[in-house]
Amino acid sequence: MFDYRRTHTCGELNCSHLKQNATLSGWVHRRRDHGGLIFIDLRDRFGLTQLIFDPAAVSKEMFEQASRLRSEWVISIKGIVIPRAEGMTNPKLHTGEIEIQVKELKILSPAKTPPFSICDEETDVNEELRLKYRYLDIRRGDIAKKLEIRHKAMLTTRNYMSKHGFLEISTPILAKSTPEGARDFLVPSRTYPGNFYALPQSPQLFKQLFMVAGMDRYFQIAICFRDEDLRADRQPEFTQIDLEMSFGIPGDLMHLLEGLVATIFKECIGVEIPHNFPHMKYRDCMENYGTDRPDLRFGMPLVRIDDIAGRSTFGVFLEQLAAGGIVKAICVKGGADISRKEIENYTQFVNKFGLSGLAWMKNTPEGLSSNIVKFFSHDLLDELIARLKIEQNDLILIAAAPEDRVNQAMDHLRRKLARDRNLIDPDALNFLWVTDFPLLRWNAEEGRLESEHHPFTSPHFEDISLLDSEPLKVRALAYDLVLNGYEIGGGSQRIHSSELQEKIFRTLKLTSEEIKDKFGFFVEALQYGAPPHLGLAFGLDRIVMVLCKTENIRDVIAFPKTQKASDLMMQCPSKVSAKQLEELKIKAEPVEITWI
Amino acid sequence: MFDYRRTHTCGELNCSHLKQNATLSGWVHRRRDHGGLIFIDLRDRFGLTQLIFDPAAVSKEMFEQASRLRSEWVISIKGIVIPRAEGMTNPKLHTGEIEIQVKELKILSPAKTPPFSICDEETDVNEELRLKYRYLDIRRGDIAKKLEIRHKAMLTTRNYMSKHGFLEISTPILAKSTPEGARDFLVPSRTYPGNFYALPQSPQLFKQLFMVAGMDRYFQIAICFRDEDLRADRQPEFTQIDLEMSFGIPGDLMHLLEGLVATIFKECIGVEIPHNFPHMKYRDCMENYGTDRPDLRFGMPLVRIDDIAGRSTFGVFLEQLAAGGIVKAICVKGGADISRKEIENYTQFVNKFGLSGLAWMKNTPEGLSSNIVKFFSHDLLDELIARLKIEQNDLILIAAAPEDRVNQAMDHLRRKLARDRNLIDPDALNFLWVTDFPLLRWNAEEGRLESEHHPFTSPHFEDISLLDSEPLKVRALAYDLVLNGYEIGGGSQRIHSSELQEKIFRTLKLTSEEIKDKFGFFVEALQYGAPPHLGLAFGLDRIVMVLCKTENIRDVIAFPKTQKASDLMMQCPSKVSAKQLEELKIKAEPVEITWI
Repeated sequence: MFDYRRTHTCGELNCSHLKQNATLSGWVHRRRDHGGLIFIDLRDRFGLTQLIFDPAAVSKEMFEQASRLRSEWVISIKGIVIPRAEGMTNPKLHTGEIEIQVKELKILSPAKTPPFSICDEETDVNEELRLKYRYLDIRRGDIAKKLEIRHKAMLTTRNYMSKHGFLEISTPILAKSTPEGARDFLVPSRTYPGNFYALPQSPQLFKQLFMVAGMDRYFQIAICFRDEDLRADRQPEFTQIDLEMSFGIPGDLMHLLEGLVATIFKECIGVEIPHNFPHMKYRDCMENYGTDRPDLRFGMPLVRIDDIAGRSTFGVFLEQLAAGGIVKAICVKGGADISRKEIENYTQFVNKFGLSGLAWMKNTPEGLSSNIVKFFSHDLLDELIARLKIEQNDLILIAAAPEDRVNQAMDHLRRKLARDRNLIDPDALNFLWVTDFPLLRWNAEEGRLESEHHPFTSPHFEDISLLDSEPLKVRALAYDLVLNGYEIGGGSQRIHSSELQEKIFRTLKLTSEEIKDKFGFFVEALQYGAPPHLGLAFGLDRIVMVLCKTENIRDVIAFPKTQKASDLMMQCPSKVSAKQLEELKIKAEPVEITWI
Repeated sequence: MFDYRRTHTCGELNCSHLKQNATLSGWVHRRRDHGGLIFIDLRDRFGLTQLIFDPAAVSKEMFEQASRLRSEWVISIKGIVIPRAEGMTNPKLHTGEIEIQVKELKILSPAKTPPFSICDEETDVNEELRLKYRYLDIRRGDIAKKLEIRHKAMLTTRNYMSKHGFLEISTPILAKSTPEGARDFLVPSRTYPGNFYALPQSPQLFKQLFMVAGMDRYFQIAICFRDEDLRADRQPEFTQIDLEMSFGIPGDLMHLLEGLVATIFKECIGVEIPHNFPHMKYRDCMENYGTDRPDLRFGMPLVRIDDIAGRSTFGVFLEQLAAGGIVKAICVKGGADISRKEIENYTQFVNKFGLSGLAWMKNTPEGLSSNIVKFFSHDLLDELIARLKIEQNDLILIAAAPEDRVNQAMDHLRRKLARDRNLIDPDALNFLWVTDFPLLRWNAEEGRLESEHHPFTSPHFEDISLLDSEPLKVRALAYDLVLNGYEIGGGSQRIHSSELQEKIFRTLKLTSEEIKDKFGFFVEALQYGAPPHLGLAFGLDRIVMVLCKTENIRDVIAFPKTQKASDLMMQCPSKVSAKQLEELKIKAEPVEITWI
């Protein structure tokens, strides 16, 4: 039998191995016949090595075999490392100075022609086709590299957390349905027909119970599930770095996690980041950036100009202010080159977020100019220039509307302008802790308060007395970690008093029965001696996306689902047998699915 | 605010810390009032530390607060490390020479009286009650220690595999139902009503696809699911150390994994085990131990005596042999002290496995004696003595029946005798690779061949030609790792040829349509250039059970399910809302569940 065990990978051999014998195994990447010789680029995950079949050095039979080789066939060869001929070296390859003079060849597997090229790095292959043949898509190398980075990120996390005294403990996947927030995936029980498990949306309750259980420090790289209509950057199953600790305070945990994030970036992509991330209060984020996850890789803050606008004679501003709205402006440096047509496009862009228009002024050598300058006195214009630090050739864009709408629209506009004007350094990594979130928000649709994060978040201790009187003013001891405008982690001090926990549930208008049904065991657990505890969950997928510089979450998951939550390769979900449904005592009429 | 952040854990302080200030936080383990002083044993996961409240050293108010403390209250204290009074030291505790003279006390959480004692290490608390209050059960410490060992086993595995070039890659939990073997847990799809995902029984297909994808070496600590009626040592969700590699052969992989297992035992419990495990062929296992997972911590092999029995005049033996049965004996060293009554009990024991009786002989000073000795000539008895190496005062037990039944019954009998006669060293770790399994077995019920392992296992290359003619003689390139009589891992060289894979499916009587529906994508994948590959899966739960010396799988899982697959703490599975079922377009009538 041919021993196909390798002495080296295809990315390993170089001039230091000259004259050595080698056994390589891998995939035929390319075959070229040239000057009576056959050249093969042999490929594996680690690289390419050039093989040469010389009719003077191998049997006629083997040379003929070599001439039959096609792309993606799997072969194993034995040969000797020789230098490439003068002028034939490839400095781009680690193996580019050598080739293997083949002496023995074994074809391990022939291959059909793949539905798309494995050679080209081009990614404009239809994504559905790539997902259907995911094993070939991974073979192209780009996804493989990302999966390797993901592996490193997970291993680095585990070693870091373990070094800091956290134990990784697995929590159940077959859990209980507690439909707060997103929709659960359900699993019918066979032993108790008509009853269901739910796949966990997070291990939140379990990890808090670990603290009650005295486990002190827990973490887990946890699979979580949400049955939601998927946005581009979501998957029905996703992964969290989930952790919890007892007897700590937010500042300590944040510092510990800055170390984790820095270690991940260092180990996975060799990038040093500072171990001290800046903090910003929720209120300041909203005021200056219109969002609670500001992208600080560029400036262009939102500037409140209610007072200036209120002293102008511009009807739109005055009306909005009178109706309780606000006026905010952003200053686009050098933006005087933006044409009226382009401003019109930006106006249409903000229309989507409910703004009826954008006012604007350009700072030309003749001073501020636009069709609304006339509504402002000279003094007011000077005030505006000072407030927004407007320089020559800057453009300012102004929105007036209810606060929420101004914030949302100007946040999007600010980020669009940054992209359009190339203000973002693609290598920049801008971390920010956002703190002092409100504990609660008003759900107008359901006419009740709901949690900004989740109902286990502790209020600021000094705000607890406001819970009854001014609940929307209560700040949460919550902290989100924002990276380049994405929330990559969120956590909080938890409630560890069963009385306060019950009070929060009641504030959220849960009935006693609902509290008992959904969280009864948890409230009871808090009565048996719960330590103060706090924690956080990082979105691993998002962190790996940043490490890999991709905006596509499917690039960092081995076998992802489509936005309709289907797996194009396995063709699932799928019909199941009548016997399976009978055993579960459930009834269902399957719709037909058409697969690509 | 009282800063409850600890300077030390409760298991840390000793004489080297005398006179130091310390902040400790934890649970009140015990309170004793003695000589006007209050003593508290403060507990956390790391140990116990004695606190002393002296009315001369603290305010009257604080002393009164201390006198109100009860078991399991969570407190934080600040004080100074002092030596214990003469004669009051506790050499069993790391902290037994010191105590803390408390200066400040903060009650963080009061606690109700727990439903069972946290203090006692006694485990005879009703297990259902322990599972209902799992967070208190863990707090008792025994489970916590096991979870810590589990954490170490997982981390050690990950670092070892990673060091050897394996990448951990997560595979989907929402997968496709392919009901070969055990029953799937199903998950209804909302986007495609009436269609279902299945929770994976193992990542088998995914990991083989990673090899087709060129990932070279993969591993995963993978959660797997089986909806089976649970035996005592099973859980509906369980954990595998799952791995696969390309271009290797079984011997190399086995050696690599011996290193993994040795590293786990060394890192987790400090036990050195040899890096070279013995091998035994399936055929020899069955012949000598009646099972493919022999427990070799003790001897007492099964010895075939067909030839001797066939020359006796004992009708039972002759009848069984004539009917195609076999005769096997085991020699119980010093077993002559086993009474007829006890032999009768063993006979009843083997009755359960379909044996109608046990013949026996004792070797007394007067020679072999029993009621069947008269059917054997002197020469035959001498042959028996030599074959079984019978010594003075040994007992031999003999079974005659069809081979399967003899093997099963004598395997159980052998292990029962070993337990009854204390032949098993509780510290022994006896590893064994079992190889050369048959590829197929006959399923008499369904009238077809089925896979001994799974349909992706490669036959021995030289046996492939027997697939049509004598399929039951085809050996598999499979290998199981057995530890102390438990299968802890199983693996094989896989089929990497799509033709051979299809041939195996057809041998298993799958129709073309079934092959296409269930495994079409997989067979197709093999056509695009699959490398030779092989792998294995370890049962992590079982390994951790051995590390922790427990026979109860629920001891090594944080939140386990009962044998009816329910979670007594969360009370799930549970009813779900009509809205949830409507969204999934499934119908189900819930049965009522009564919870403890």
